Amino acid sequence: MKKLAVVAFGGNALIRGDEKGTIEEQEANAYDTCVKLSELIKKNYNFVITHGNGPQVGNILLQNVGGAKMFNIPEMPLDICGAYSQGFIGYVLEQQLRNVLEQRGLDRDIITIITQVLVDKDDAAFKKPTKPIGPFYNKDEADKISKTTGAIFHENPRGRGWRRVVASPVPYRIANRQSIGKLARDGQIVIAIGGGGIPVYYVKPNELRGIEAVIDKDLASSLLAIQIQADEFIILTDIPKVCINFRKPDEKTLDVLNVDDAKLYLKKGQFTEGSMAPKVRACIQFVEFTGKEALITESSHLTKEGAGTRFILK
Amino acid sequence: MKKLAVVAFGGNALIRGDEKGTIEEQEANAYDTCVKLSELIKKNYNFVITHGNGPQVGNILLQNVGGAKMFNIPEMPLDICGAYSQGFIGYVLEQQLRNVLEQRGLDRDIITIITQVLVDKDDAAFKKPTKPIGPFYNKDEADKISKTTGAIFHENPRGRGWRRVVASPVPYRIANRQSIGKLARDGQIVIAIGGGGIPVYYVKPNELRGIEAVIDKDLASSLLAIQIQADEFIILTDIPKVCINFRKPDEKTLDVLNVDDAKLYLKKGQFTEGSMAPKVRACIQFVEFTGKEALITESSHLTKEGAGTRFILK
Repeated sequence: MKKLAVVAFGGNALIRGDEKGTIEEQEANAYDTCVKLSELIKKNYNFVITHGNGPQVGNILLQNVGGAKMFNIPEMPLDICGAYSQGFIGYVLEQQLRNVLEQRGLDRDIITIITQVLVDKDDAAFKKPTKPIGPFYNKDEADKISKTTGAIFHENPRGRGWRRVVASPVPYRIANRQSIGKLARDGQIVIAIGGGGIPVYYVKPNELRGIEAVIDKDLASSLLAIQIQADEFIILTDIPKVCINFRKPDEKTLDVLNVDDAKLYLKKGQFTEGSMAPKVRACIQFVEFTGKEALITESSHLTKEGAGTRFILK
Repeated sequence: MKKLAVVAFGGNALIRGDEKGTIEEQEANAYDTCVKLSELIKKNYNFVITHGNGPQVGNILLQNVGGAKMFNIPEMPLDICGAYSQGFIGYVLEQQLRNVLEQRGLDRDIITIITQVLVDKDDAAFKKPTKPIGPFYNKDEADKISKTTGAIFHENPRGRGWRRVVASPVPYRIANRQSIGKLARDGQIVIAIGGGGIPVYYVKPNELRGIEAVIDKDLASSLLAIQIQADEFIILTDIPKVCINFRKPDEKTLDVLNVDDAKLYLKKGQFTEGSMAPKVRACIQFVEFTGKEALITESSHLTKEGAGTRFILK
């Protein structure tokens, strides 16, 4: 029996450092990432790939604004922009992974699924949105948009202007989870829940609708791993191991971390919000629900023995 | 055994008449279309839904131009815009179809797959591109873009300006066709090859790349129906039956049309290029390859006995 893994990586794996995100850059970065992912095939894994979409959906939002102002094209809400990004990133990843496999004589089919994720419209996050998205505006523009659309704006602490904030609600049910699990167990490499999934909610018990929010991609990926009974949950990042006292004289890298210690470190603010903290929470969720192990590691060390930080129950 | 059908409809089913394509319009139109498609479930069909993307990808191209000019966001090539549109339209259709089924007590899962379609880079179409896409430019702008990108522009015959034209190559292999067929036979409603699929070609025998082209969605859908051994191929349109001598005093509606007659009528220019002609060609292809029947009909008469024009071998 092959092991089934869910492997999550960030949208900034495709737009690095000060890159602008040309298609050439994103394809080249996707290729690099796929070379690393192909190691899982050599190790005989079945797996689902999940990915972020932060920089890409940021660009799509600006394209929306540009299209509206210059050509009067109706602006699309955030759930549609997320759907754009799932199509885009899924296609680029699938194509580059097909190339990597073909060039290495590895024979697997790859399938990209547009994924909706159910959230709760009464989630406390909707009362206090915190996730900044899209372009910066000056105060007058922000006030005007706010008045017509109800969007909430926060002032950037570094004086860059006013920016829209949206909620980051808890993910509940992942659409197509059974098919995702089945396809992956059948040996297909499945690309799914891009950007954490397109957030949807029930307006009425028999009517789904998209909602302008951003689901944390690590948390959604962990939920998918639980819901498809994956054997492993892996988060790829750009540091070799999780650290405490990060960038301080007594910095300590962690080889293994149990759930209790992880919670304690989180409480003490050891992990940066918007960066390592959500990754740690996603791993805790998987390990607590399943009793299995989760891993945070650098993508180039994906299958290297002893690499990364293993999360264990106790 | 349930019958397996491939059902194709146009991207203008979601943006009608003089609508601008707001999300509210497109969702309402998608809902209407899905109500009609749900008749196939009552008739106990398994099926794959394919759709066009003309108006949507037109808007996406303008958003790209707007994003580049106003915010310096790198412009994406046409294959990426197609991927955006597959994510977008697939999501909207899937969501509205979920609502329709839930409200009617019909129990099927729905899955949307981002689909690449292989074309031949030596296709004669690339030497003589004819498919107009994107915004109109004045001659100077068109010349400038042409010089830097190699894009080809044609002057609009009604004096609206210069517009880019791309090739419409023949579709060959549909990625994920086996999964599409298997999922559909297992009872899932599969949404695939949006906009005719994202055209890709082999730069080298082991390297796929996207290409700026538009695949005819009816021809790609017919090919999919052949490749998954569908029992029926159905094209939905907004007229009740195929006609000859269309809008002339001796106009005649056709209940049944055999392949030989269909070819003859095509040759005589009985069917409008860019409208009915490609639909007829797609039906001929399916019927010739499989010996089975194809149907062109109005979506509101999808399962009505005697509705539409049936294409038969002889």
